[in-house]
Order: sequence, then C-alpha cells, then structure tokens
Amino acid sequence: MSEAAQTLDGWYALHDLRTIDWQAWNSASSDEQEAALAEIAKLYAEWEAVETRKEGSFAFYSVIGQKADFVLMHLRETLEELNEIENAFNRSSFARFTRKAYSYVSVVELSNYMGTPGVDPMQVPEIVARLKPTLPKSKHICFYPMNKKRDLQDNWYMLPMEERKTLMRSHGMIGRGYAGKVKQIISGSVGFDDWEWGVTLFADDALQFKKLVYEMRFDEVSARYGEFGSFFVGNLLNGEALARLLRG
Amino acid sequence: MSEAAQTLDGWYALHDLRTIDWQAWNSASSDEQEAALAEIAKLYAEWEAVETRKEGSFAFYSVIGQKADFVLMHLRETLEELNEIENAFNRSSFARFTRKAYSYVSVVELSNYMGTPGVDPMQVPEIVARLKPTLPKSKHICFYPMNKKRDLQDNWYMLPMEERKTLMRSHGMIGRGYAGKVKQIISGSVGFDDWEWGVTLFADDALQFKKLVYEMRFDEVSARYGEFGSFFVGNLLNGEALARLLRG
Amino acid sequence: MSEAAQTLDGWYALHDLRTIDWQAWNSASSDEQEAALAEIAKLYAEWEAVETRKEGSFAFYSVIGQKADFVLMHLRETLEELNEIENAFNRSSFARFTRKAYSYVSVVELSNYMGTPGVDPMQVPEIVARLKPTLPKSKHICFYPMNKKRDLQDNWYMLPMEERKTLMRSHGMIGRGYAGKVKQIISGSVGFDDWEWGVTLFADDALQFKKLVYEMRFDEVSARYGEFGSFFVGNLLNGEALARLLRG
Amino acid sequence: MSEAAQTLDGWYALHDLRTIDWQAWNSASSDEQEAALAEIAKLYAEWEAVETRKEGSFAFYSVIGQKADFVLMHLRETLEELNEIENAFNRSSFARFTRKAYSYVSVVELSNYMGTPGVDPMQVPEIVARLKPTLPKSKHICFYPMNKKRDLQDNWYMLPMEERKTLMRSHGMIGRGYAGKVKQIISGSVGFDDWEWGVTLFADDALQFKKLVYEMRFDEVSARYGEFGSFFVGNLLNGEALARLLRG
Amino acid sequence: MSEAAQTLDGWYALHDLRTIDWQAWNSASSDEQEAALAEIAKLYAEWEAVETRKEGSFAFYSVIGQKADFVLMHLRETLEELNEIENAFNRSSFARFTRKAYSYVSVVELSNYMGTPGVDPMQVPEIVARLKPTLPKSKHICFYPMNKKRDLQDNWYMLPMEERKTLMRSHGMIGRGYAGKVKQIISGSVGFDDWEWGVTLFADDALQFKKLVYEMRFDEVSARYGEFGSFFVGNLLNGEALARLLRG
Repeated sequence: MSEAAQTLDGWYALHDLRTIDWQAWNSASSDEQEAALAEIAKLYAEWEAVETRKEGSFAFYSVIGQKADFVLMHLRETLEELNEIENAFNRSSFARFTRKAYSYVSVVELSNYMGTPGVDPMQVPEIVARLKPTLPKSKHICFYPMNKKRDLQDNWYMLPMEERKTLMRSHGMIGRGYAGKVKQIISGSVGFDDWEWGVTLFADDALQFKKLVYEMRFDEVSARYGEFGSFFVGNLLNGEALARLLRG
Repeated sequence: MSEAAQTLDGWYALHDLRTIDWQAWNSASSDEQEAALAEIAKLYAEWEAVETRKEGSFAFYSVIGQKADFVLMHLRETLEELNEIENAFNRSSFARFTRKAYSYVSVVELSNYMGTPGVDPMQVPEIVARLKPTLPKSKHICFYPMNKKRDLQDNWYMLPMEERKTLMRSHGMIGRGYAGKVKQIISGSVGFDDWEWGVTLFADDALQFKKLVYEMRFDEVSARYGEFGSFFVGNLLNGEALARLLRG
Repeated sequence: MSEAAQTLDGWYALHDLRTIDWQAWNSASSDEQEAALAEIAKLYAEWEAVETRKEGSFAFYSVIGQKADFVLMHLRETLEELNEIENAFNRSSFARFTRKAYSYVSVVELSNYMGTPGVDPMQVPEIVARLKPTLPKSKHICFYPMNKKRDLQDNWYMLPMEERKTLMRSHGMIGRGYAGKVKQIISGSVGFDDWEWGVTLFADDALQFKKLVYEMRFDEVSARYGEFGSFFVGNLLNGEALARLLRG
Repeated sequence: MSEAAQTLDGWYALHDLRTIDWQAWNSASSDEQEAALAEIAKLYAEWEAVETRKEGSFAFYSVIGQKADFVLMHLRETLEELNEIENAFNRSSFARFTRKAYSYVSVVELSNYMGTPGVDPMQVPEIVARLKPTLPKSKHICFYPMNKKRDLQDNWYMLPMEERKTLMRSHGMIGRGYAGKVKQIISGSVGFDDWEWGVTLFADDALQFKKLVYEMRFDEVSARYGEFGSFFVGNLLNGEALARLLRG
Repeated sequence: MSEAAQTLDGWYALHDLRTIDWQAWNSASSDEQEAALAEIAKLYAEWEAVETRKEGSFAFYSVIGQKADFVLMHLRETLEELNEIENAFNRSSFARFTRKAYSYVSVVELSNYMGTPGVDPMQVPEIVARLKPTLPKSKHICFYPMNKKRDLQDNWYMLPMEERKTLMRSHGMIGRGYAGKVKQIISGSVGFDDWEWGVTLFADDALQFKKLVYEMRFDEVSARYGEFGSFFVGNLLNGEALARLLRG
C-alpha cells in the first residue's frame, strides 16, 4: 500500500484572514455600519445553519497584532462551496471595510490511518467525526502552516517509512499530553497551497499553545524536520463581539 | 546529442492570474457590470474560436483563497500572440475590476524525447497533440512552478545523465498511475520566467492533485531535488459561472 | 520535568509599530490635528492608569528610520485586553493618520527557572516583578525578534539539555555585565508569532544596545544558534513629545 | 595583475522596466492619450539620435506576463546621463500612465580580457564595439541578473584563478555555439546593484533563449555556481507598436 | 579587553532614501513646486550650517534606477537629532512629493582600534576626524549594508580572534589600494538595524566602486564571510541639481 493511501481526507478547509480598513470603517455613516454588520450577521447565520445540518463547520476569531483583524475558518464538502463562501463574503457590503491578509486552502486529514480490512473508514463514526468535525468554540485559536524539511541530510522524505512512523509516534505522544486542553485539527495542503500542512489549535487558555508548540520543538520531528510559516493567534468572535470590536 | 536537444517545444503558455477588485465591482452600476461581462464574454468567444481552429487553447478557472480570484491559461504559437492576449484583456472594460496576482511564461515541452532517426517529430500526430494540446475542461485545475535543486550535494544538474534518466523514469511511473484521473501539462520556463518548469494539472476530483503530488514527494526526484513555488487550485469557469461568481 | 515546564510565563505583550501618514497629517486642519492628539492623550492617560494600578504596563517610543514612526509596547494579563487596546487605537481619530508597520505578540517569560519545591513562584515578589514588570521610561528602546537555529549540524533543539544550560549560563553572564546600563525583557512567542522570542532592551545610552548585542554575537549561543529579525531603535515619547514630533 | 584589472568596462547600462497603469490609461481621453504617445515618440527620437551619433544605445521591448509591460534598456557614457534619461521619462506626460516594475544598473564589461602589452584596448575597434555596442533590434529580448555562489563548499570566489578560467572557458564554448542565433551582452553590477551581473540576450527566435540557458545550466559554472534572479522576456517595440499595444 | 571594547563609536548615521511621487509632482502647480523646493532649500541650508559648525554632516545624492530617487545621509551626535531631521523633512511641503524607499540607522565606527595606554582616543584629532567626519562632496556615492556570515562551517563569529585579525588586515590592504580614489565610511548597526554594518563609499569615478568591491570579493573575508544587502549608487545633488532633476 502506498504512502499516500494511508491518509484519509475529509472536508476541505479555507482559512480566510482579513484586515479591517479602519479608515473606511471610521468614516462610514452609522447607517452604513449597521447595514454592513447586518450582512455579516446574515452570513454568520447561514454558516451556523450549515453547521447545524452537519454539512460543514466554521470558526470566527479575532487576530491579535497587525497580521490580520479576524480569521474565518470554513469546512465544506467541496472546493466549489468554499469558493462560493469567499465570493459571497466579497459581494457583501461588509467586505468593502476589509482587506485581504492571508488565506489557506487544505483538506482535513487523518494520516497514518491503520484501516481494518473490509471496513470502509468513512462508515466509522469516530473517523468521520475527525474528518468532518464541528469546530470547537474555544476562547482562542492558533493557526500556522508547516512543512517537513528536505534540506541535505535533514530530509524527511528520504527517511525510511519505518523511521518516519517511529518519529511520528513519539511526536503524537506530546500532542496527546495536551488532550482536554488543546484541540488540534490537521489539514493537508500538498497540491493546494504553499505549505504541506495547516495546523489549527483551539484552547480556552492561550498559554497552552505556547507550551505545546514549544515542547514539540524539542522533539526530533519538529527540531530536525519542522519548517514553520506565520503563526496567527486570536480570540473567539461572533456577530456581537465583532460589533464591539468595530464600534467600541 | 546535447541535453537540451532532447527536449521538444510546442506552444508558448501564459498563465495569467488576476484578483477581482471587489470594491470597484461592488460600487459599479448594473450597466457598467453588464458591459464588463459582455466584453469578457466576447474575449471568451474569441479564445474559443482560436481553440476550435486548433491555433491555440485556453483554460479559465476560479482560484480558491486570496492569492487570486481566477486564472486564464493561454497557449499560442508565438510570444507575440500571448502578449496581445494580455493587452487586449487589459484594454477591456472588465480589466478595471481586476488586479494582477501572478503570471507565468513558459512553453509546453516534452523532455527526454527519444526520436526515430529520419522522422520529424512535429509530423507525428501523437507528439503534436502533446506539444499543442487542447486543454481539458475538467472541474479543477492545479498550477505550480518548480525547480530542480542545485544545493551542495543535492545538485540535479551535476548528476550524470544516466542517473537523471533513471530517476525520471521512476518519477514518471507515479504520474502514469494517475492516468485517467489527472491530466498533466509540463511547460519549460528556463530563460522565460523565475522557475524552471510550470506544472498544470487538470482533474475532476481535486483530491487527486493532493494524492499525486504527495506520492511524488517521496520519490527521490522530488524528495531530494524538487523545489516548489506557490500552488494555485481552482474550479472551472465560463462566462456564466463568472457572472454568478461576481453577482451571486 | 519537561523542558517547557521550566519556563514561567507572565503578562502577554503586544509590540505595535506604526508609521505616520504624513500626507494625511500635513493636510489635516489644525482642529483635526488637535482632536487626534487629544484622543491619543486620552488613551495615554488610560494606559498610565492601568500601569499605576499594576494591571499592565506600556512603553511609547519613536522609531528612527523608515521602518516605523513609533512603537507602543503593551503588557496585559490577557490576549483579550491586548486586542481591545489595538481596537481602541484603531477606532480613534488619531489612527487615520497612521499606517501599520509591524507588530509582535508574545508573553513575558522567565526561562530556566529553578523552582523551590513547595513554593508557588507566582507568590515570590521578585519573580512576579520580572514576569509582570513596570516597563522603564529609559531614553531609548531597542526591539528585535529572534530564533534559535535548526540548521543541519547547528541545531539548538537537538542539543542535550545540559549543553544548552551551560551555553545559556555563559550567555547570561554577558547580559549581567550590562546591569544598570541595559534593562532587558525577554518574551516568548512560540505559538504566538513568527519568531520564537522577542527581546526588548531599554537604556539611557543607545550605544549600550550595540555593545551588548555585538558582544553577545561572539558567544556561541548567538554566534552559532542565533537568528535575528528586524531591529527597531527609538527615543522615549509621551503625548507632548508626540505633538512636537508631528507639529514641530 | 589583479583579478579586477582583467575586466574592461564600457558604457553604463540602465534596464528600466515599467508597468502600464491600465486603469489610468483606459480612463484618459483620446487627447491625453495622443499627447502621452507624442511625448514618448519624442523621447524615442532622442534616443535614436544618440544611437546614431554613437554616444549611446537603447532597446525597447514589451515584457510578457505581469512582471512588467515594457523594458527600456539604455547605454551611456556616464551615470549622470542614465539618471537624466530616467528623470526625463518621469517628467513626461506618458509617465503618469506607468508604474515602476524593476530596474538594473550595471556597466557593459568584457571579463578575462587578455591585453597585448603596450596596446590600449580602448583603441582596438573590435574591443570598443563590444564595450560600447549598438544594441540589436532583434525580435526578442531576455534579461536576467545573476551571481556566482558563495555557499560553503560551492564558493566561486574561493576557487583558484586557474580553475575559474578553465571553467569559464568551457562555459563560453556553449555561448559560442549560439553565435548568429543569440546576441549576448554581459554587464557587471558589483557595487552598482543587487546582483553581480546582468545578462541581456537578443534573438529572433525566443526558443533559443531557453535552449541556451538550459544547456548552460548543466555546465559546472551554472550548475554549481550560478544563482539567478528574475527572468524577463519580451517582444520588440517602437512608437507605433507601443500605440498598438495601448490602443489595440 | 573584550572584542566590543576595541571598537570606537562616533556620530550616529541615518541614510534616508526616498522616491519621488512623480504623479503628484507633475500635477502640482508651479507655485506648489516652488514652495516645496524653497522648503527643501531651507532644510539644506540648515544641514550646511550644522556641518559648518562641525556638529554633524550630510550627503545628498540622486539614486540611479527605481530603488529610490535620492538619498540623504546625515551624521549627528545623538539619535534624537537624527529623528528630528526625519520629522522635519516629513513635516515639510516637499515631503508630500516623496515616498519612503529605504533607510538605515548606524553609528560611524572604527574597529580594531589599538589604543595607547593612558590616551583618550576622543582627544586624538585624527581619530575624531574619522569618527565625526565631514562627508566628502564627491561626484558619486555607493551605499550597501552587510553582515559577516554565520553559516555552518563559514561562521565568522566562531573564528578565533587572531584569525579574524589576520583576515581583516589583508582585507584592509585592498581598501588602502584605493586611497585617493575611494573614500570609505564604515558604520556599525548591530542593535540598530537589520544588517551588521553599513558601507558608504564616495568617489569621483563611479567605476572605482565596482573595482574595489569586486577585488574585495575574492578576499576571504568577503568571499567566505561577506553577506551583502542592496547596493545604491548615485550622483551628487544640491538644491539646484534637485530642481533640475524635478523640472528639467
């Protein structure tokens, strides 16, 4: 069985990070602001309805610092649906108060899946729940993309499969030590975006992000083979919290 | 026979990725929008006519995420034609609703071509079909540029030709395993653009992009020698689909 | 005891670097300028009040050169408070005369903490003073983010813990040689921002920044394992100094 | 004799790449467009006159793809003249329809010159023709900047001079194989711009650029020591062709 | 005596590179242009007066190519003065016709200074003249920032001091060969800006920049340990020359 075949793929994911154009927002009339907030509230309600119907899920968080003002993470069955979500946002009157900051396209994945012969994993509820998850509404989010290095003698993809499995097992142990504190969604992006994986963490105590990622950094998988993109950290939002963020 | 002589070159390719200026679009009048869509429809009809006459080909896809909103891939006999396609687009009233996102200049190529003595490959229909292809209208596109590494002991260009051939053969095997699922167009861009090759994949199931590129990543050609640029993934568009994308 | 557990975390930190939009400022009316300065003075008073109540701290400095015009460094108990500080600034009438330049999210930390069994370090006043410090009002600030390298044989995270401790001890000695001249705040940003640590230095004599950082560069921890981001250096500001900066 | 002394320097070169602001152009009146084209035609006539007087030379080409819309390459005796050419362009009414894309400052050079004792090379017509060339009006241009690597054991500047000479000789052989097909201008930019050399190629068949650069890539000088910047490829322009490009 | 102690520091330096907003300039009225030029002339007179009083110095040069249109290099006793120079420029009516291009903060330094016991070097006129120089008004300037590498076995900071001294001595010899042709100002920027040193060269013959930097590149200090930023080259300016540049 080939390497790739051991990976199960679930919902497609779009991380959509936006910056608020404060100049435009602050000079808009109160009516224009209300109209924009009403449109975002309508979209929010639609995303909630999809989540309720288990046809997708979403997360809505502010982002601390200047990299972005908020992130919308969407999960859907198809790329067409994700694209339509973007376009609907862009057509809304709220969009004119935002600027692009960053985005990420990937698919929720379960790697190193050890199947049972004769069993379709997509019929196993526990598997489906991990591949098509309802995103938690924790207080904080942390998102970052990453690669496995291919740098001279530090080349993950040139390691024998057995060695990679052993390394990943001990790496996974660290993650398991944060069970109950940090919820982790891994999505694969080879062929979809500029890094190989996206990691999305959810926690009520943001310090747990630091502890987890720092502890992993000493593990050989990260220490020797991990390459990391930008880190984004944020606080849970909803329509009201967004209105407070924008209007004080 | 020199290395370069083994490569056959076909049509020139331009990948033209654009972002929609949603602010300008959303504040345009319905008449302005109609006029812009009519102009893009006219260009689209011209591109179709060229394709019908087998004088070139094109692909028109949306792009998921913030890197771009759509990609136009054009194939033509000359660089002059490709340049005129760009300019005609830029002169159109639709162009003012778009911004540049990325572009790529290359030429469709068939490398490691083993010719038959006395036979002009450009007279062999099967070869011509690969060098001057009609691009498929699959549901999804994936485009990325790439290099072969020249990094200390991982230097593709310092390998003996025999070793490169052996490596490429096993690499090609992986691609062949996706026959019928993924259609692959390789275009060379040494001397034309910032990477050495452009890879354009077409598939009805976007997951096949991930499976193919991920499986290849463990093959020595990619694992040790592959360097990759940005990945762009999208959904098939046409005039109507573009109108829906823009107007909901 | 794990590696991460030896690190104590205190207040969250936000470095917020902004550029003045001189075009907008110079063309504003005197009234608009007064109003904007009054709003920033009000925010400044709030930040001072928080500092007085020991619920946080702040530093306000100009930045020399084009990277930014000023930096605001805020310390708070939660990410929510830091986010609200940003948003309040962005909603102010002064914000429209500024543009984003750079930001950094981290948490004040004390690494290699050797606890006493049975003693909660957060009950030790000396420890708390270092984790939740009142930032000095020295004449100059210097801020830069940094990583520990993971590059083939120069991989900090693959060193045995004992070796890292020995190296850090001699590294710390250099810092201690600047006691009384340079006040140093280390904040950890693994999982929060794009580098692993932020270093903020305060001194009345800016040359001491150069001497300290240069001397450290020959120490193995920096020489072999240090990776540095942008350096920002500035002069102490307050409301009046900002008004002078803006109005001459 | 030192290394540098073996290099002969001729005219200074400025590559000036610009993008058309299509939004501004498309919304300009026909009169404004005519006036702008008339100004560029006047500059073009001045550049031609200088070339006729053998006091400099120029090349004017469109650029395919989004990196730029056209490139102006100017050769002059002094940096003052090159700077005045830029400024005159910037003061013209055509300039407001353009945006900066890229530029390169260098000086035409002849390296590895083996002089005859007692002979001033600047009195040898063949040498002068190479150092102060009239640029060809071929159908296509290709421009890219490059470095010789200094990366651990792949360090060009640490090689003994004899080895460098041997390597360059075989490298030069490849170039000579394209005589009559590709005209090559090498300009040195150490101390002037961000790469060490600029390479400008002219050909009637653009495919020859690809063949030449690709063939060279397997030669040790490029394979092991070459570092390449962006590649720009374009089609010959003149006043009329520019008008067609802009107005269809 | 520590490494850092052997370095003497003089005046702080700010390199301030700006681009002209030609669109704004070309559409300004003649009166607005006159007023802007009058303000820059006034600032210029102030800078000259400071230089005459030996309280600082400045250089004013155009920059060839698109990286910037001019560079202002200022030397002053304190960072506060440098910051006020920037701010005064930004408040001037000329500033609205400019955009930021690049800047650099450093301090003029004399490294490897071998003091005489009991002698305060700042009382030695020759030393003071080098640390607090009056910048020459040569025809050309060349500026670039640089680092000493810390890359695996090519790590300058891990070399024994004796070896670094020997290497620097032979490196300095090359520079001395250009005495009378190129005037060189070295400024240290560790802790102040993103590179470790700024190098500013002045010459009446710009080719000498190329010859000097190229010759040095074969010296081990540069060949193996030198890392270079952007290079900026320009022509001497003053108020009149600036007016000519802007108005033809």
